[in-house]
Amino acid sequence: MHYGDGLFETIRVRAGRPCQWRRHLERLNWGAGRLGMPLVDSDRLADESLAISQGLDDGVLKIILTRGSGGRGYRPPLAPAPRRILILYPLPQDPGATFESGVLVRYCRTPASLNPALAGIKHLNRLDSVLARREWDDPRIAEGLMLDPSGRLVGGTMSNLFLWDGERLLTPGVEGAGIAGTTRGLMIETARSRGVVCVETNIEPPDLKRAEGLFLTNAVAGVWPVRQLEDHAFDLGRLPWDLLAAVRQAARTSG
Amino acid sequence: MHYGDGLFETIRVRAGRPCQWRRHLERLNWGAGRLGMPLVDSDRLADESLAISQGLDDGVLKIILTRGSGGRGYRPPLAPAPRRILILYPLPQDPGATFESGVLVRYCRTPASLNPALAGIKHLNRLDSVLARREWDDPRIAEGLMLDPSGRLVGGTMSNLFLWDGERLLTPGVEGAGIAGTTRGLMIETARSRGVVCVETNIEPPDLKRAEGLFLTNAVAGVWPVRQLEDHAFDLGRLPWDLLAAVRQAARTSG
Repeated sequence: MHYGDGLFETIRVRAGRPCQWRRHLERLNWGAGRLGMPLVDSDRLADESLAISQGLDDGVLKIILTRGSGGRGYRPPLAPAPRRILILYPLPQDPGATFESGVLVRYCRTPASLNPALAGIKHLNRLDSVLARREWDDPRIAEGLMLDPSGRLVGGTMSNLFLWDGERLLTPGVEGAGIAGTTRGLMIETARSRGVVCVETNIEPPDLKRAEGLFLTNAVAGVWPVRQLEDHAFDLGRLPWDLLAAVRQAARTSG
Repeated sequence: MHYGDGLFETIRVRAGRPCQWRRHLERLNWGAGRLGMPLVDSDRLADESLAISQGLDDGVLKIILTRGSGGRGYRPPLAPAPRRILILYPLPQDPGATFESGVLVRYCRTPASLNPALAGIKHLNRLDSVLARREWDDPRIAEGLMLDPSGRLVGGTMSNLFLWDGERLLTPGVEGAGIAGTTRGLMIETARSRGVVCVETNIEPPDLKRAEGLFLTNAVAGVWPVRQLEDHAFDLGRLPWDLLAAVRQAARTSG
């Protein structure tokens, strides 16, 4: 496991149960397929996850799945014995209290790595996000936005980005960079099921200033409306609150 | 260390001493600076490396330097306690026997990740190289060449690439992707000290077919002349053998 050769899932736990379990499991196995790792035993992992979450009212379950030990070089083992690591963490302070009031967001200088072979996958090569997250320590700033080397928006260091243009949702595609977030998937599906058009497309910084509103999604916080991006303030009243509240609620259920 | 947040060095050991120590140490500390990690204590690491290498006639020393344990998220610890891991490996079979006869090389489909913030650094986010190395298991093929997402050559999965056009050496720059190899640096300096022009530039696959010759460099194998790339054979006699032999020899000294 010298080269970040593996996958992870960050899962909200509520009332002793992992939230949105099916989406996390599906993404994990989709990632395993993309990386050429054996699929996980779904029943076994579900049992382990439920067992470790039992009794926990609210928290975070992290699952790490590595290809397993190899030799010195890059050549992975021919018969890999993947390793599962399950870790419980307390809920970060106030992950949801900012739903009504919105969050403060900045841009990061560190670009997101561009690689179609890795894009979308929640793999363990996250040095770009680590360097981006190092760029600020002001606790009032909830998240930093990352661009790919061509200047296209990828998302936050730990979240996906949505733009509301007054009629439609727009979100960066995940073919070149970024992660196919579970809450991102839930947002896209919920929007479409309600007749809201949701487009995966290229977004650049000037598009954000022209937007009616922005919000971020991730599995721990759910939905973060963006109150301010650098020196640009948004009128939170223009966001499609019914949709945001529905997804926030659904993200906390077992799915 | 969940996110490949660290560095490594792969060092040839000969007669109980790490080869080209100064170059490896300099690159390690250059990488630490780029990643915002504390620099290593050079004397201490030198002592440790010499102690572990003692008595080893020929082998490989791998040094892993991680930022140290952090929390769940991407935010690194404010006061990191970096971790040093030193591992000795036997020399891979025949790393140098192919110097005279040359090696067989193929292209990989997996692109190298593009990220100017990480380029050049020998960091631990190497999932692209792992996936590329998985693409073949024919032991006759020594190395695979990787392109960045724009189709520019980056190098081999574990080596740097040089092209000889009959008068000059050309090698891909490491501003967008790739690793600033120690033997690459030794080759560039040795060439220039002998009056051979060496240019860091964009190289694309058609350039390789037009070349007089190709070779690869890394710290374990030294120099690998390329006998054949896919179905294209090279006339090894056209390579600047004096230069290659000098670098191969120098790469095996303590530097």
